Amino acid sequence: MKKVKGYKCIICDSEFSLDDIEYVCKNCKGNLQVTYDYHFIKENLKKSDFAENKDYSIWRYTNLLPVENISRKPIVQIGCTPLYKAERLGNKLGIKNLYIKDEGRNPSASLKDRPGAIAVANALERGEKIITCASTGNAASSLSCLTAALGLKTIIFIPETSPVAKIAQLLVFGAIVIAVKGTYDDAFDLCIKATEKYGWYNRSSGYNPYTREGKKTCAFEICEQLSWECPDKVFISVGDGNLISGVWKGFVDLFEIGFIDRLPQLVSCQSENMDAINRAFKSDGVIRPVKGETIADSISVSFPHDGDAALKAINGSRGFAISVSDEQIVRAIPELARETSVFGEPSGVVPFAALKKAIGEGKIKEDEKIVVLVSGNGLKDINSAMKSVGQPLKIKPDLIELDKIVSRDFV
Amino acid sequence: MKKVKGYKCIICDSEFSLDDIEYVCKNCKGNLQVTYDYHFIKENLKKSDFAENKDYSIWRYTNLLPVENISRKPIVQIGCTPLYKAERLGNKLGIKNLYIKDEGRNPSASLKDRPGAIAVANALERGEKIITCASTGNAASSLSCLTAALGLKTIIFIPETSPVAKIAQLLVFGAIVIAVKGTYDDAFDLCIKATEKYGWYNRSSGYNPYTREGKKTCAFEICEQLSWECPDKVFISVGDGNLISGVWKGFVDLFEIGFIDRLPQLVSCQSENMDAINRAFKSDGVIRPVKGETIADSISVSFPHDGDAALKAINGSRGFAISVSDEQIVRAIPELARETSVFGEPSGVVPFAALKKAIGEGKIKEDEKIVVLVSGNGLKDINSAMKSVGQPLKIKPDLIELDKIVSRDFV
Repeated sequence: MKKVKGYKCIICDSEFSLDDIEYVCKNCKGNLQVTYDYHFIKENLKKSDFAENKDYSIWRYTNLLPVENISRKPIVQIGCTPLYKAERLGNKLGIKNLYIKDEGRNPSASLKDRPGAIAVANALERGEKIITCASTGNAASSLSCLTAALGLKTIIFIPETSPVAKIAQLLVFGAIVIAVKGTYDDAFDLCIKATEKYGWYNRSSGYNPYTREGKKTCAFEICEQLSWECPDKVFISVGDGNLISGVWKGFVDLFEIGFIDRLPQLVSCQSENMDAINRAFKSDGVIRPVKGETIADSISVSFPHDGDAALKAINGSRGFAISVSDEQIVRAIPELARETSVFGEPSGVVPFAALKKAIGEGKIKEDEKIVVLVSGNGLKDINSAMKSVGQPLKIKPDLIELDKIVSRDFV
Repeated sequence: MKKVKGYKCIICDSEFSLDDIEYVCKNCKGNLQVTYDYHFIKENLKKSDFAENKDYSIWRYTNLLPVENISRKPIVQIGCTPLYKAERLGNKLGIKNLYIKDEGRNPSASLKDRPGAIAVANALERGEKIITCASTGNAASSLSCLTAALGLKTIIFIPETSPVAKIAQLLVFGAIVIAVKGTYDDAFDLCIKATEKYGWYNRSSGYNPYTREGKKTCAFEICEQLSWECPDKVFISVGDGNLISGVWKGFVDLFEIGFIDRLPQLVSCQSENMDAINRAFKSDGVIRPVKGETIADSISVSFPHDGDAALKAINGSRGFAISVSDEQIVRAIPELARETSVFGEPSGVVPFAALKKAIGEGKIKEDEKIVVLVSGNGLKDINSAMKSVGQPLKIKPDLIELDKIVSRDFV
């Protein structure tokens, strides 16, 4: 592939060719970044190519992806999710240009279909037959969805506490599901050991260098949807650090090929109980495991496996970090839904909760262009959503009973 | 509106102007059909207009919709859902051209966003402030989603047995939710009475003539996605009869303006416990209430309020009727998901279960172009999905435990 140069280690900067290595750095075990020949891409790709491109999926960006042959790939339509201008919410918050990117509209109802697709395309190019993944739930339900119709065997490691909707997706799509009596971190470690022992293809975020490449397509879409203008700030939920570093990679790619003329600030949004990356950002830059619990299961990570890449993204973008409480997260679910028609799962609304906190702290100027990334659909975790609202009014099917409610509540 | 002529009663053929009437026929209380000036539309609309149209939502078809001004409308992107060619499933079933239309990709995760959008646009044009709807769940959760960011007050009537995910959507989006201690039919009747008493705008299917107009956009998309070729058969889940009659209207519209040169057969797919329309179709054409229960809650309707329009669609298309059991529905959920990557809710997979039955009965030729409409996302009803699959394997996070499973199950 002329467009791809190879890999570069996030930690020690060692460089490798694509054939040289499989997952992590040979020298220091650091995570790898895929590097591109930006000069070659710039010569061969124009903005006008996109105006004419009718492939409304992540594959419209194949020239910027580490995939050679997309003849075999997941059959479902991934990406090109809506970016809404949230006028009503913006007015309420005093932000003139507020945008919501609704990633819950992907096939398995979360952003994880993007990285899953690139990893699956890579696995197919390598001729792999068994693909595995550790996940808090969404990456796995996505992988099971994407591989379902491809004849790949999929083996999933999740913590046994994953929300039932995500487990149901896994089982319905036919994955082999191993629920680990422990945390996501335990599931992650066991999945790596299994890969080493059995030689399965491993799609886990914070290990496989291709997931970041999938996540970067969010940034491509945001810029294209804003007519190749770069936003000022992007609020992103952060668990293992792979999403924020992926989105950053996307903006950097576009900047390097001259499609955008500046870079945005990225805001790392975590749950205050599980915010190892934000703590490291605010102190000495060293990632240390945290202990805690959060309702935002998708970003419930003790030791973030892509933490160093995430810190580089926050620092590189001159961004900042906001941690929010579970109470703020729960309150954010109906508020976002009622102002924007977008129903997010707990981790999906963390960036919105963080935006509100950032406004309170005076960190937002009213004329900035702000994007809030909603990473997953609220239908993924109904139990948490129900904590944010009351119950229906129950009545007999009778106009007299109804009339009591109407005169009491509606007038 | 030059494009729209007025209303015509489904039962007695009485005609009315748009200003004349609100919901049903003045003469016989029959449901109304919106009629168009096809000559005018034909003069003003070409297929090539669509090739250039970059609005990938139902509003690309505004020239064929009873909406004048779409400046105020729901902000979310509705329609233009994927139509997948299901090669793998087609091979398994012996059908060369099998397509799956995934309506679970709509904003509130079901097809109901289409009719909801047209009704909401109509309510806004009329300056209405309160909108109500009776629903088995999806029409209501859609309406709540669509009205959330528009400042409309939304009052919902559902049976108290609606799946929790749908109730959660309603509450999160901020609707007033009245759970009726009774059936969908009880909720429907109470909603009509409330409309008559309080003057609210009523969006209920089988009453409001605009819902059929929203549902017809499915047919528009199917034809456009097939390069303006008409499929041979479309399998459609049928509850109150409004969807199949809406889809039929869409094909007829396209035929009348010369965009397609033939019409498809529509297959009415019901649950065998709640199949009033199929029973009427197979006997004397008279709709009679049925009693029963079905796991397919979205089509659990005793007396179908758009039954006559549905029968006209089945007969007019020279289609047929297939009823399936709950057991067949439950089995269809994982089978469809594993072969096509599309996870449908119980009523969403009814058409697929019916297709399998139709194949068994010799009703399908292998070279026919078949479309299966999956009307809602499986995440809408996780409890039913879990009935179709087993449970995860639970282990300690330990390679020795894993190895036992691998050597037992995977080799």
